[in-house]
Amino acid sequence: MEKTKIILDCDPGHDDAVAIILAGKNPKIDLLGITIVSGNQTLDKTVRNALNVTQHLEIDVPVYGGCSEPMVRKKVVAGDIHGESGLDGPVFPPLERKAEPEHAVNFIIKTLMESEGDITVVTTGPMTNLAMAMRMEPNIVPKIKQIVLMGGAIANGNVSPAAEFNIMADAEAAYVCFTSGRPMTMVGLDVTRKVLCYPEIVERMGRIGNRASKLFVDLMGHFCKTQKEVFGWEGGPLHDPVTLAYLIDPSVLKVKPMNVRIDIRSTESYGRTNCDPFDYLHLPHTADVAMDIDVERFWDIIEENIRLYG
Amino acid sequence: MEKTKIILDCDPGHDDAVAIILAGKNPKIDLLGITIVSGNQTLDKTVRNALNVTQHLEIDVPVYGGCSEPMVRKKVVAGDIHGESGLDGPVFPPLERKAEPEHAVNFIIKTLMESEGDITVVTTGPMTNLAMAMRMEPNIVPKIKQIVLMGGAIANGNVSPAAEFNIMADAEAAYVCFTSGRPMTMVGLDVTRKVLCYPEIVERMGRIGNRASKLFVDLMGHFCKTQKEVFGWEGGPLHDPVTLAYLIDPSVLKVKPMNVRIDIRSTESYGRTNCDPFDYLHLPHTADVAMDIDVERFWDIIEENIRLYG
Amino acid sequence: MEKTKIILDCDPGHDDAVAIILAGKNPKIDLLGITIVSGNQTLDKTVRNALNVTQHLEIDVPVYGGCSEPMVRKKVVAGDIHGESGLDGPVFPPLERKAEPEHAVNFIIKTLMESEGDITVVTTGPMTNLAMAMRMEPNIVPKIKQIVLMGGAIANGNVSPAAEFNIMADAEAAYVCFTSGRPMTMVGLDVTRKVLCYPEIVERMGRIGNRASKLFVDLMGHFCKTQKEVFGWEGGPLHDPVTLAYLIDPSVLKVKPMNVRIDIRSTESYGRTNCDPFDYLHLPHTADVAMDIDVERFWDIIEENIRLYG
Amino acid sequence: MEKTKIILDCDPGHDDAVAIILAGKNPKIDLLGITIVSGNQTLDKTVRNALNVTQHLEIDVPVYGGCSEPMVRKKVVAGDIHGESGLDGPVFPPLERKAEPEHAVNFIIKTLMESEGDITVVTTGPMTNLAMAMRMEPNIVPKIKQIVLMGGAIANGNVSPAAEFNIMADAEAAYVCFTSGRPMTMVGLDVTRKVLCYPEIVERMGRIGNRASKLFVDLMGHFCKTQKEVFGWEGGPLHDPVTLAYLIDPSVLKVKPMNVRIDIRSTESYGRTNCDPFDYLHLPHTADVAMDIDVERFWDIIEENIRLYG
Repeated sequence: MEKTKIILDCDPGHDDAVAIILAGKNPKIDLLGITIVSGNQTLDKTVRNALNVTQHLEIDVPVYGGCSEPMVRKKVVAGDIHGESGLDGPVFPPLERKAEPEHAVNFIIKTLMESEGDITVVTTGPMTNLAMAMRMEPNIVPKIKQIVLMGGAIANGNVSPAAEFNIMADAEAAYVCFTSGRPMTMVGLDVTRKVLCYPEIVERMGRIGNRASKLFVDLMGHFCKTQKEVFGWEGGPLHDPVTLAYLIDPSVLKVKPMNVRIDIRSTESYGRTNCDPFDYLHLPHTADVAMDIDVERFWDIIEENIRLYG
Repeated sequence: MEKTKIILDCDPGHDDAVAIILAGKNPKIDLLGITIVSGNQTLDKTVRNALNVTQHLEIDVPVYGGCSEPMVRKKVVAGDIHGESGLDGPVFPPLERKAEPEHAVNFIIKTLMESEGDITVVTTGPMTNLAMAMRMEPNIVPKIKQIVLMGGAIANGNVSPAAEFNIMADAEAAYVCFTSGRPMTMVGLDVTRKVLCYPEIVERMGRIGNRASKLFVDLMGHFCKTQKEVFGWEGGPLHDPVTLAYLIDPSVLKVKPMNVRIDIRSTESYGRTNCDPFDYLHLPHTADVAMDIDVERFWDIIEENIRLYG
Repeated sequence: MEKTKIILDCDPGHDDAVAIILAGKNPKIDLLGITIVSGNQTLDKTVRNALNVTQHLEIDVPVYGGCSEPMVRKKVVAGDIHGESGLDGPVFPPLERKAEPEHAVNFIIKTLMESEGDITVVTTGPMTNLAMAMRMEPNIVPKIKQIVLMGGAIANGNVSPAAEFNIMADAEAAYVCFTSGRPMTMVGLDVTRKVLCYPEIVERMGRIGNRASKLFVDLMGHFCKTQKEVFGWEGGPLHDPVTLAYLIDPSVLKVKPMNVRIDIRSTESYGRTNCDPFDYLHLPHTADVAMDIDVERFWDIIEENIRLYG
Repeated sequence: MEKTKIILDCDPGHDDAVAIILAGKNPKIDLLGITIVSGNQTLDKTVRNALNVTQHLEIDVPVYGGCSEPMVRKKVVAGDIHGESGLDGPVFPPLERKAEPEHAVNFIIKTLMESEGDITVVTTGPMTNLAMAMRMEPNIVPKIKQIVLMGGAIANGNVSPAAEFNIMADAEAAYVCFTSGRPMTMVGLDVTRKVLCYPEIVERMGRIGNRASKLFVDLMGHFCKTQKEVFGWEGGPLHDPVTLAYLIDPSVLKVKPMNVRIDIRSTESYGRTNCDPFDYLHLPHTADVAMDIDVERFWDIIEENIRLYG
C-alpha cells in the first residue's frame, strides 16, 4: 500500500490533537513532521501542546515551531474555546520532548525542495507557515502535491458573520495558498458542523480503553463544555480531524470543484471564503470544497484510529 | 379586525407578481399603493408588469414608477431569470391602466408624512425607492412602522458567493435602510430557498381555477424553467411572497433578532448581509431575521389568497 | 454677451457666502436658483445662512432647501471651521426671506428637464442634491451642460490624509456625479490652497466700502481665525469662490483633462479623488482638474465683483 | 567617529545603485550586508545588478538574495523605467562575485538577533524582506534601531494616483513595517521629486573622473531617458540615495513626526501612505516623514561620496 506523505501544520487545540491521533499511527499516512503555528493559542503553548500529545502517544515525529504572528494582521487566539493552555482538560506527564531547532518555515521549504512532488500539506490552523514558506521560496509551490485544509465556509462563519476562525486569523496567508494554483481541498464549517461530538460519541470512544481513548475523552470533556458556554451548542464540532479522515478514506466527504476567493480587502467581511458552488461568476475552479460528510463513517474512522494506539 | 397598512415596493418579476396576489385582496392587508423600482428588469418593464397584473386581477390600487437606477452603483437586472419582459410567461389583455404621474419616492414621502406612524413598507426588490425617500426627507424615518424585506442571506448568496440579488443590486440602499433604526424583518434566502415551487404545487394552485390561479400557473411555468436552466434546480424558490405571507400570518416564519450589517466597502463581498445569529460580535440587534419557515402553512396561505380572486 | 446659466448648490459656510457674492450680480452669470445642502453645518443653518446673505445683499434669487443627510454615510459637519451657526462672524438684520417650499432635488430636476441643455451646475458643498436628482430622474443627466465643483485634491486632503471635506462628507454623491459622463471641472485643494486670504487681502476688500465689502470683512475675520486655530495657518484658503471666478474668467485656472475616480470602497482612503494627471493608468479622461491658479487675477475678480454691490 | 551600522535592502535599479555608491565607502557608514528583493526587476536580475555594482566598485560586502515575490499580492516590476536588465545603461566586466548562499530573510534575522540593537535597516525597494523577517522571527523587532525607507508620498503617487512604486509593489510588507512600532523615517516622493538629475548634474559628477563617476554617468544616461519617455520629465528624480544621504548628513532633510497608515484594504487606493502632517485624525505619530530637502546639499553629498572611489 502506498502511503500518503504529509506534513501536518497545526495549532493544537483540542481538535488538532485528535487530528494528530489520526495522523500518528495510520498505515496509510507517512507523517514527515508536525509544524506548529500560533492560532488556537500563542505559539509557545501550541508547540508545548503538540509535544505533550506526541510524547504521550509515543508518536515519533519531529515537531517544528513556526510563526508566532499572522503574516500581516494582528494576532488573535481562541482562548475562549481552547482554554488558557490551548489544550485545557488533559493532564500530561512531565514534558521531555523538545521541538526541533529549525524553524517550521525552513523545514517546510527544505522538505518540499528535496521531495519528488509527492507531499501533501495538511493545515488545521491559520495557514501562516505554509504561505510564508511559499513566499520565501516560491520554488516549493510546484512541489506541493496538494493542500488539504480545515478552514472557511460556503455559508456563514464561526467568529464573524463572514469568517471562520482559521481563515480570519490570517486571511492573507489563506489568500496566498488559495492563489497558489496547487490542488486544494477545503474542509469547511459546512461539513465540520455536522460532526458534533455528543456525549454518546465520547462514551463510545472512551470504551476503547487505551491511552488515545483516554486522551480523547479528556479533550472532549473540555471542548464540548466551552462550545456550550460560548455558542450554546450540545456537542462541539470536531473540525480538524476531518482533513485526516478524508486522506485516510476519501469517501467520507463529498467534494465539489469550484472557485474560491478569500476576501482580504473588506473590513467587515475580512476572511470570508467566497465559494461559488453554483458557478454564478464563471471563474476558474480553484479548490475542491467539501459539500457533505458521511457522519457515521467519520466516527468509525475516529474509532479505528484510536484503536491503533492499543 | 385591524388591517395592516402597507406600501408594497417591488420590481415584478414573477415572485413579485405572486406577492401582489397576496397583497391585493387579503382582508388583513390595506394596500395603500404599489411603488415600482428597477430590479428584475428595467423600470419601464417592471412598471408595465405591475400594471398588467393589477389590471388583470382587478386590484384597484395606484401604481407609482420610481427609481430606474440604483443609488450609487451601476444598474443590473435579472433577465436570465425573469425573461426579456421581466414577466415572461403570461399573456395579458391590452393594457389600459396607467401609472400615477407622481414619482414613487415623492409618494412614499407624502404618504408617510401624512400618516400616523402605522404604515409598514414591504420591499421585494432593490431598496432604492425607500432609501431615496429616507434621504430626501429624513423626517419620514420615525413614521415608518416597520420594514419587511425580501433580501439577503445568513448563509451564501444567489448572485455571488456573498450576495443575494435584491441587496447586491443596490447595497447602498439596503445599507441606508438597515442603519435607519426602524424595526426591520429580513426575509432572506435562508427561508425562501425552502419554498420551492415544484410541479405538484403548480398543479394544486391550478386546480383552483380562477384568474389568479391561472396567472400563478402561467408565471410559475416560466419561472421554474429558468431556475432550472440557470441553477439546475427543480422548483424555483418563491422568494417575494414570503414577506406578505408573514404579514398575513406571522406564525409562518421563525425569526430571531440579531445584528445585520450590509457590506458596501468590499468589492468581492459587496452586498453581503453579515448577519450575526450567534452574536459573535456583541453588536446591537438591528433586524429580525427569518430563520425557518413553515412550508406547508406557506403553501396554504398562497392557496387561500388565490381563492380570494374567486 | 451670453450669460452662463447656473444653479449654485452650496452649504454656506464662509467661502460659500463669497461664492454667492460672485454669483449674485455678475453680468456674465444668470443665477437660476440657489440650492442648499447639509455640509459646513446642518441644513437648517445652511439654509438660514443663504437666506441671510441673499437678503442682506439684495440678491433676488430663490433659495431651495435640499438634503439634510448624505446619500449613504453618516452626516458630518465642519463646525470647527465655520462655527456654531455655520456662518459665525457677520451679524445680520432680522430675516424676512423664506426658502421656497419645493425641495432642492425637485427644483433641480424640473429646471434641468425644462432646459435646453444650457445649465451649468456649480457645487461648493457635498454633492448630495445633484446626485440625488440624477438618481431620481436619470433623464436630467444629458441635460446638464457641465458640473463645476469645489472639492477633492490631486495631492492630500484637508479632513483626512486622503480626503477633502466636500467629497468626504458624501463620497457616494461625488461618485455618482463623477461617473455621470457629463463634463466636469474639479476645483480642488491643489489650487484653492494657493488663494490664502491674508490680512492685506481683507484690508484691500474692506477699503471698497459697500455692503458686500463689509460682509467679506466680517466673514473673513472669523474664517481666518478658525483656520489658524485648527490648522495653524495664517490666511484661510478661499475654496468655494474659485468655481465662480473660473466661470467668470476661465483664464484664472489652468486645467488638465484626466481620469478621476472617487474611492468609496476604502475605509481609510474613503473620499479620495484619485486623479491621474500623468495618465499612469491609461483610463478615460473624466474631468478637467484645476492644476494651477492665477492668484492675482483671482483677487482682482473678487474685488471687481464686490464692487458690483455699489 | 561612531559609524552607523546598516543593512541595505534594495532592488537595483538605477537609483539603488547610487544608494550603494553612497553606502559603500562612506566613513560614517558600516555596511553589514546588502539584501536584495524583487522590485525594479525580478530577483535574479536585481541580485546580478547588486553583484555587478559591488564588484565594479570593489565594495567588499556580502550580497544576499531574498524574496522574489511580494508577501501577498502579485508581483509587479518597473521594467519601463529600469529596462530589461533592471540596470540598463552601464556595461560591466564579466561577473565573478556570487551571492551568499543564505537567504536574505535569514541573514536579517541572524544579524539582528546577534546585534546589540544598533542596526539601522535601510530599504530602497519593496519592504518584503524586512517584513518577512519580522514575521518569521518577531523577536528581531525590538532589535531594530530604526528603519529608513524610500517609499510613499504625502501627496500623490508615481504608479497610481494613490501610490508610490515601492509601497504599491508590496503594501502588505509596508503595513507590517509601519505597524512594527520601531522608529521609522519615510523618505517619500514629496522630497525625492525635488532632486531631479538634470544634465548639468550628470556633467558635474562626470567631471570627477573615477570609476564611480563613470558608473553614475552611465546609469543616469538611461534613467533620465526613460523618465522622460514615461513621464515626460527632464531629469529623473533620484529617489533611493536620499535615504543614505540622510544617514550621512541628517541636515539634508526636514522631517516631521506624524501618523502614517498604509492602505491595504482599498482596491483603488491600495498602497497609499496616508500621512497626517496636520494631525487631522489625532492618531499616534508612527514615523518621521521627510517634508523638505536641501537640494544643493544633496548633490554635494553625492559628489563627496563619488570622490571616495578615487
